[in-house]
Amino acid sequence: MTTVTSTKAAPAPDLSRIDPALANGAAWINGRIVPVGEASIPILDWGFTRSDVTYDVVHVWKNAFFRLDDHLDRFAASMKGLRMSLDLDRAAIAGILEEIVARAGLSASYVAMVCTRGNPAPGLPRHPASCVNRFYAFALPWVWVIPPDVQERGTHVIVAKTPRIPTECVDPTIKNYHWGDLTRALFEASDAGADNAILLDHEGFVTEGPGFNVFAIVDGTVVSPDRGALEGITRRSVLEICTELGIPNRIGPLSRADLDRADEVFFATTAGGVMPVSRVDGRIYTNDRPGPVSVRLKDRYWAKHDEGWHVTPIDYARYARPLGS
Amino acid sequence: MTTVTSTKAAPAPDLSRIDPALANGAAWINGRIVPVGEASIPILDWGFTRSDVTYDVVHVWKNAFFRLDDHLDRFAASMKGLRMSLDLDRAAIAGILEEIVARAGLSASYVAMVCTRGNPAPGLPRHPASCVNRFYAFALPWVWVIPPDVQERGTHVIVAKTPRIPTECVDPTIKNYHWGDLTRALFEASDAGADNAILLDHEGFVTEGPGFNVFAIVDGTVVSPDRGALEGITRRSVLEICTELGIPNRIGPLSRADLDRADEVFFATTAGGVMPVSRVDGRIYTNDRPGPVSVRLKDRYWAKHDEGWHVTPIDYARYARPLGS
Repeated sequence: MTTVTSTKAAPAPDLSRIDPALANGAAWINGRIVPVGEASIPILDWGFTRSDVTYDVVHVWKNAFFRLDDHLDRFAASMKGLRMSLDLDRAAIAGILEEIVARAGLSASYVAMVCTRGNPAPGLPRHPASCVNRFYAFALPWVWVIPPDVQERGTHVIVAKTPRIPTECVDPTIKNYHWGDLTRALFEASDAGADNAILLDHEGFVTEGPGFNVFAIVDGTVVSPDRGALEGITRRSVLEICTELGIPNRIGPLSRADLDRADEVFFATTAGGVMPVSRVDGRIYTNDRPGPVSVRLKDRYWAKHDEGWHVTPIDYARYARPLGS
Repeated sequence: MTTVTSTKAAPAPDLSRIDPALANGAAWINGRIVPVGEASIPILDWGFTRSDVTYDVVHVWKNAFFRLDDHLDRFAASMKGLRMSLDLDRAAIAGILEEIVARAGLSASYVAMVCTRGNPAPGLPRHPASCVNRFYAFALPWVWVIPPDVQERGTHVIVAKTPRIPTECVDPTIKNYHWGDLTRALFEASDAGADNAILLDHEGFVTEGPGFNVFAIVDGTVVSPDRGALEGITRRSVLEICTELGIPNRIGPLSRADLDRADEVFFATTAGGVMPVSRVDGRIYTNDRPGPVSVRLKDRYWAKHDEGWHVTPIDYARYARPLGS
């Protein structure tokens, strides 16, 4: 499972040899693989009742994971940051992720690994340190955070009035499900007839949006915020591609004023790659279409998958049902 | 179910006529009553993956709900605030809560009603407005947010370095599961050898703690914060009891300096009532014991239950299994 190769060579699943019940996605729950529609977590898990949980999402494209090691690294760091631990080691987690994708026969997939606080062990105090943490995983058919037709015309966004939850309250570099502010921002966006939203921090600097990092091209440099945002792995890919293409780039402060005077704006996420923006509030960018640099980065992002950049092919055959079953 | 009476007259459950599988608590999941240990929610419910959820908790004491109508009112207001709605009306929800308590045979119980965002209806966009909201409920044997022996000696707390999530990001008057800051504060407390924590807002004013409202007696007045806090129903009870006893009281700003110079500090919550505090950081209050006014309010709070104040007896017999079954 560690061979890096071109996705052109990655073998596809044999769909006649998967369980049809798993075709809409599979989940790993307490050691069992179940259809994702039947997958559930205990209602008393503090991962739900206190949103005391971290997770990560890796994608599968053309039958291969993308940057699996980076996602496993970040997931481990997030668990450590929340003082969580699991009986499963890194190889076991990677094996579970491969198995759910393979058994669902997904060539393109959104693959989530989740660690919840769980519940206090019997007899111990009601404190997070007393809890037995739990692991869950699920693989879904590919999810677009922003639909392809919207990306094609350029995403229309607002800058939300709702500020992002401050870093000192909930650390955004530990991937989390605290979406209250992001959900409010999504309603602000739809109320305004926009597709999505960008959130600022309390000082007026750009942070991120619901499920994606933000980028602006300011004075010829691709800038992504240095505060209030997830340290996105797709963000990292974008910046590496910028460097490869000779485009100046940096992680740094991005003010609302920078956004207004930017030449282009785009987003990046595991669940969608590079997503061009054509409007922010009333302002129209690049003739109301995806900007040229955004499109160039987007194309290069997907082309690099074909070239085998950071890909880990999935061994579908290993998990396929016997022939004729 | 609407008769208000003394809890002394409220009939107790016949424990020989309950299902033993429900004795540790019961939950209502999609119209079925199940043992709470088996109750689960879909892993894909946005109530989990976006913590897009509201809830309320009413308690049962001596075989009767306490302030059930107030909790149902707040739950409805919370759902409205998040633009959620259910097919179940108020009477149906009240009926479900009574049924799970009665079938579990609980004389004292923590009873939660939960509304999650659910998931987008098929064919609709991935937006919270597209979702079909879901209802869940569960009743547990009585839960103490702070254990009785700790309350007895006086709770030792710290003022956390982690600030409370600001109101403009996530509205604390809409009861929610965004506990990231509260969980951090609980770790700060245990690291410091304390029992629990109080959180300040970004301007240094007291907000609340993990699952409770804060009170301080300053210059003879019982003060509870006017910002960054749930509008607690137990808080309301405490202030009403203060008025009854002729103790000046108000909802207003409570600074860190007020806390330091207060004569007494105590907490209030549905899952515990009035909970005295004897230490905040290094500072010792009322000879390191629960303060006299705190204890007076605590005693009066429980005595008023016996007097039938805001109680709704549970009709256990209606849900009991047939004799001899």
